[in-house]
Amino acid sequence: MIVAMHGEATEENIQQVIERMVELGFNVHRTTGAAQTILAGVGTPEHFEVAEFKVLAGVYDAYRISSPYKLAGRSFRPGGTTITFPNGVVVGGEEVVVMAGPCSVESREQILTSAKQVAAAGAKFLRGGAFKPRSSPYSFQGMGLDGLKLLREVSDETGLLVITEVMEISQIELMLPYIDCFQVGARNMQNFNLLRELGHVRKPVLMKRGIAATIEEVLLSAEYILSGGNYNLMLCERGIRTYETYTRNTMDISAIPVLKRLTHLPVLGDPSHGVGIRDLVPPMALASVAAGADGLLMEMHPNPDKAMSDGAQSLYPEQLQKLMAQLKLLAPVVNRMMA
Amino acid sequence: MIVAMHGEATEENIQQVIERMVELGFNVHRTTGAAQTILAGVGTPEHFEVAEFKVLAGVYDAYRISSPYKLAGRSFRPGGTTITFPNGVVVGGEEVVVMAGPCSVESREQILTSAKQVAAAGAKFLRGGAFKPRSSPYSFQGMGLDGLKLLREVSDETGLLVITEVMEISQIELMLPYIDCFQVGARNMQNFNLLRELGHVRKPVLMKRGIAATIEEVLLSAEYILSGGNYNLMLCERGIRTYETYTRNTMDISAIPVLKRLTHLPVLGDPSHGVGIRDLVPPMALASVAAGADGLLMEMHPNPDKAMSDGAQSLYPEQLQKLMAQLKLLAPVVNRMMA
Amino acid sequence: MIVAMHGEATEENIQQVIERMVELGFNVHRTTGAAQTILAGVGTPEHFEVAEFKVLAGVYDAYRISSPYKLAGRSFRPGGTTITFPNGVVVGGEEVVVMAGPCSVESREQILTSAKQVAAAGAKFLRGGAFKPRSSPYSFQGMGLDGLKLLREVSDETGLLVITEVMEISQIELMLPYIDCFQVGARNMQNFNLLRELGHVRKPVLMKRGIAATIEEVLLSAEYILSGGNYNLMLCERGIRTYETYTRNTMDISAIPVLKRLTHLPVLGDPSHGVGIRDLVPPMALASVAAGADGLLMEMHPNPDKAMSDGAQSLYPEQLQKLMAQLKLLAPVVNRMMA
Amino acid sequence: MIVAMHGEATEENIQQVIERMVELGFNVHRTTGAAQTILAGVGTPEHFEVAEFKVLAGVYDAYRISSPYKLAGRSFRPGGTTITFPNGVVVGGEEVVVMAGPCSVESREQILTSAKQVAAAGAKFLRGGAFKPRSSPYSFQGMGLDGLKLLREVSDETGLLVITEVMEISQIELMLPYIDCFQVGARNMQNFNLLRELGHVRKPVLMKRGIAATIEEVLLSAEYILSGGNYNLMLCERGIRTYETYTRNTMDISAIPVLKRLTHLPVLGDPSHGVGIRDLVPPMALASVAAGADGLLMEMHPNPDKAMSDGAQSLYPEQLQKLMAQLKLLAPVVNRMMA
Repeated sequence: MIVAMHGEATEENIQQVIERMVELGFNVHRTTGAAQTILAGVGTPEHFEVAEFKVLAGVYDAYRISSPYKLAGRSFRPGGTTITFPNGVVVGGEEVVVMAGPCSVESREQILTSAKQVAAAGAKFLRGGAFKPRSSPYSFQGMGLDGLKLLREVSDETGLLVITEVMEISQIELMLPYIDCFQVGARNMQNFNLLRELGHVRKPVLMKRGIAATIEEVLLSAEYILSGGNYNLMLCERGIRTYETYTRNTMDISAIPVLKRLTHLPVLGDPSHGVGIRDLVPPMALASVAAGADGLLMEMHPNPDKAMSDGAQSLYPEQLQKLMAQLKLLAPVVNRMMA
Repeated sequence: MIVAMHGEATEENIQQVIERMVELGFNVHRTTGAAQTILAGVGTPEHFEVAEFKVLAGVYDAYRISSPYKLAGRSFRPGGTTITFPNGVVVGGEEVVVMAGPCSVESREQILTSAKQVAAAGAKFLRGGAFKPRSSPYSFQGMGLDGLKLLREVSDETGLLVITEVMEISQIELMLPYIDCFQVGARNMQNFNLLRELGHVRKPVLMKRGIAATIEEVLLSAEYILSGGNYNLMLCERGIRTYETYTRNTMDISAIPVLKRLTHLPVLGDPSHGVGIRDLVPPMALASVAAGADGLLMEMHPNPDKAMSDGAQSLYPEQLQKLMAQLKLLAPVVNRMMA
Repeated sequence: MIVAMHGEATEENIQQVIERMVELGFNVHRTTGAAQTILAGVGTPEHFEVAEFKVLAGVYDAYRISSPYKLAGRSFRPGGTTITFPNGVVVGGEEVVVMAGPCSVESREQILTSAKQVAAAGAKFLRGGAFKPRSSPYSFQGMGLDGLKLLREVSDETGLLVITEVMEISQIELMLPYIDCFQVGARNMQNFNLLRELGHVRKPVLMKRGIAATIEEVLLSAEYILSGGNYNLMLCERGIRTYETYTRNTMDISAIPVLKRLTHLPVLGDPSHGVGIRDLVPPMALASVAAGADGLLMEMHPNPDKAMSDGAQSLYPEQLQKLMAQLKLLAPVVNRMMA
Repeated sequence: MIVAMHGEATEENIQQVIERMVELGFNVHRTTGAAQTILAGVGTPEHFEVAEFKVLAGVYDAYRISSPYKLAGRSFRPGGTTITFPNGVVVGGEEVVVMAGPCSVESREQILTSAKQVAAAGAKFLRGGAFKPRSSPYSFQGMGLDGLKLLREVSDETGLLVITEVMEISQIELMLPYIDCFQVGARNMQNFNLLRELGHVRKPVLMKRGIAATIEEVLLSAEYILSGGNYNLMLCERGIRTYETYTRNTMDISAIPVLKRLTHLPVLGDPSHGVGIRDLVPPMALASVAAGADGLLMEMHPNPDKAMSDGAQSLYPEQLQKLMAQLKLLAPVVNRMMA
């Protein structure tokens, strides 16, 4: 940590800062300039809050000078993390992996048709919600366990992997037999108790960025899962909340290359939630891969105009098919491939 | 719902929209203007998503024309909700109620001293965290059950009520014997499973606005608790995330009078999290009450410079005392009082 | 400036940074810790960009450690700036000064009636736009010179001072004979050529915060005016753009006490633009003064329902009257007064 | 316009709204539902503010149901606008056009070297600032007229077109002999007087999105230029301000396909300002084109580490070269080409 003092700070102010730094476990190096004094704290105490120093008398500003996350940092695994799924699909490798399917599991027929269309298009995962976090208590809340069973059944039939959202600790056990990957939604990115439990599970997790989460907070939340011992973690940009209302969210495409620099974890893009408007999904999917995404998570519905949730952002099956063809051409431009 | 068609929409486009509206349960009234067609959907189907209509061919835009929340709306209880606590303290009435205390319970001595100072200043509730949601897994996570016991003990000793944060469904039972009011933190405002459970509890709840939650989302989350039967609910503005970084958050003071118009629920302000800087807390506390807040939730620590968390935004005991004196003078200016 | 190196930075990386610092005119003090190296640059070169250092190889982060503004800083005039107007009205002193009037000058009758009502309520300035910056070229663009003449005429009749917006350098000369204070609107806060010209004028200026301006940018824009020699400058918080759409903007009340700490310049609040909804203006005006504002700028119209612009946020005359009575009671609570 | 009344609105409330609508020139169609009344205003009065209706007694909400812009709308020129420059370069056609060069013109040697590198890489325009809008009055403000002359000279030598920023009406005349395209910077996107003047000029204009401008505001500002008769206008996404601080701005890539739907004007991306970090520029440039951009505006400097401004976001010449090669491969994937 570094503390820069104001030019007008008194020696007493400076001593108070030094004392507190020493008390926390820092060795303090002092630079006394003509204009102001700088205090460099060397060492890495377990607990300290930079904000605490910012309000001490005579302090101009204080700076943390190292990442607050460790296991999530790129230097922990410079070569990058790859996650291998039961059927051999690898996320984080050369291949760009696509996960697609409806927002919610609605019926056997709907999810089976979806799975067939998703598989036909060349995607590797079927997505679909069985437990749905809905802003309103009056919206459709998902089929629960029945939905999980249907997901498993149709995926086995079509050779797809299953990814679905977990909202609550008690659902983890319930879900384990039916799924290949847990999805943590944006609203739960800082549900720390849930993250901690997922750190103890032996199934991969895809964690979405919270709607107002900074890049650093994403990596700190990742740290909760990693520090429990579960290293099979993927991150996912899905749009942040800004003042612009034309799109549902503002998809921060730059978060993809930023995360690729800062962490070894695979990074996916979710253009469906990123923009919320069907026809904008293909250009944003292409942009995600052009920017370096390891994969995509997208909503597709056999009949989006009748979907029980998120129909507006669900692709028609033929849109997905066309997009997959473009993605196959795009991947090699950025040194990736799609099978 | 209303759907405004584009000027260039075809009759086929219009018919498709009408059919879907009818299918969902609307009666449709059509106005054919020279410039464009307007379709007014009369009736209130349970489930429909306005977004679905926005992407239909030929649609200019679609509008929901009623609140998605019911129980939280002002018209449900035009006179406003008042919550009466065991010792007779009333929130939502004429009195402006202050809740104060440290961010975390750290030790018996710390919380006892805090309680005495809080009571001496004239506050009615002791706040203090036993379970702490921290961005980093390496930060202090709270004393847990021991913290709860200490909170109860020192509050009984000083005649204060206890408010503390609940993060997880499994903590509800654990907390019940020790507390007077559950606090739902900003990060859990859309933890819908937790909200639903709190709807079944018979203790008051204070729910904070999420860091990027719209006013409408606050009220929809309130609806989760109310629809479970727990009407003893308070809302709390605690700052939202914006591009400005000088303050920890940007406290949206206007949310206080806005919420007072839209809902019957009491509304408090939390200037400590709102700004994150100790010396800015008193002006923002005064602003909150000037704008109509029913109460305040604030951090105070006997020795903020040594606090284990949030020291930078914790008031010194003498600051709280001085602020309370100002609040007593301010309250009558806005037709309120402080005992 | 301080540069913190990554733990993995090579000696070559470190030397490159040192060389560039020296080249810019810094004396460099080096602290070599076990974990990382810290380079403190002592001295104050005229031109340097911290961002440049952030992208050098091996750099963890770089920090400016002094304000980029000088004349606007509190330490330049610790006692604060007061601005005395021709008729003896002082802004920045003990008195809370109110400026009110319609959004636009619409006609002689409208502005005369406004002026009488504003004066009767006890405000000291008449506001009203003659040149209007409108998002759409099809909206009413103001009466221009005729509006200026009317403003002067009715203000002389009622003993009020005139404040009105300047949008363009060529308008400055035109306005000088008619006005007492220039207003720089939010959209022009970074129109640097205009600011520079206003620095050479000998009339006070009120500069509004831009809709997405940081506190630091506000003070840098102030520096443009101050460095031209015009010290009669007031700042004004008028709401920033956030994701919340219920209000027109989100009024950042905390910017008021923050600016009072950072600068010696008087700070006003504009709750009309801050919220955009008439009935929310009084609570936000009270909140502004409770938080330390030196004055208020508000829209009032004799007949807001027929206003040519901004009617929705213009107070009825009787609302202004009632609000002024409350403000008079509030001012002493925060050690201010209103005549 | 449509006005939806509250369920509790009285007949008197409804009549007041109808009267005001009629007064403004609307024909009103009334739908009286069991739950609420809906008033559809047919017709297109010149001046009206939807906000005015939102605050009338008994109103639930009011909606504008047509675009406030006309000439900028897609339907005005469904085939899209193409702009042909003197040397035959076309923007808005099949080709993706690249404009590159340093942030500022610094010297004859610097800008000549830049021009040669830009031309060698295959870009068609040389960018470079002669007049610089800088947040601080103490930063380098540009070479002015001398810079313009140098831009022209080296562009003629290398066969490039010149694009440079105009900040002030008085600069327009000065610039005309030297440049091929005016650039309006983000800070001037709502400098309406400047826009109006540029509407009367017979040279193309590239207008950047303001840092907090909505898509609708971009198009309304475009309308100022178009309504003056200048149809040779390009728009440019350059990042918006959000809470995320890792990047300089958050580049809203989705604005590119959104604008392509809403307007006939060509749309470019400026990844340099979008992210502010050199190594993130190539992925964001690729993402822009993948999402449908008609061109790119980027900063490149022969020696970015010594640049007088924006060095951190300026590409090294070899980075530009490599990026151009990738762009050539990418363009056909989205049905475009690069010569």
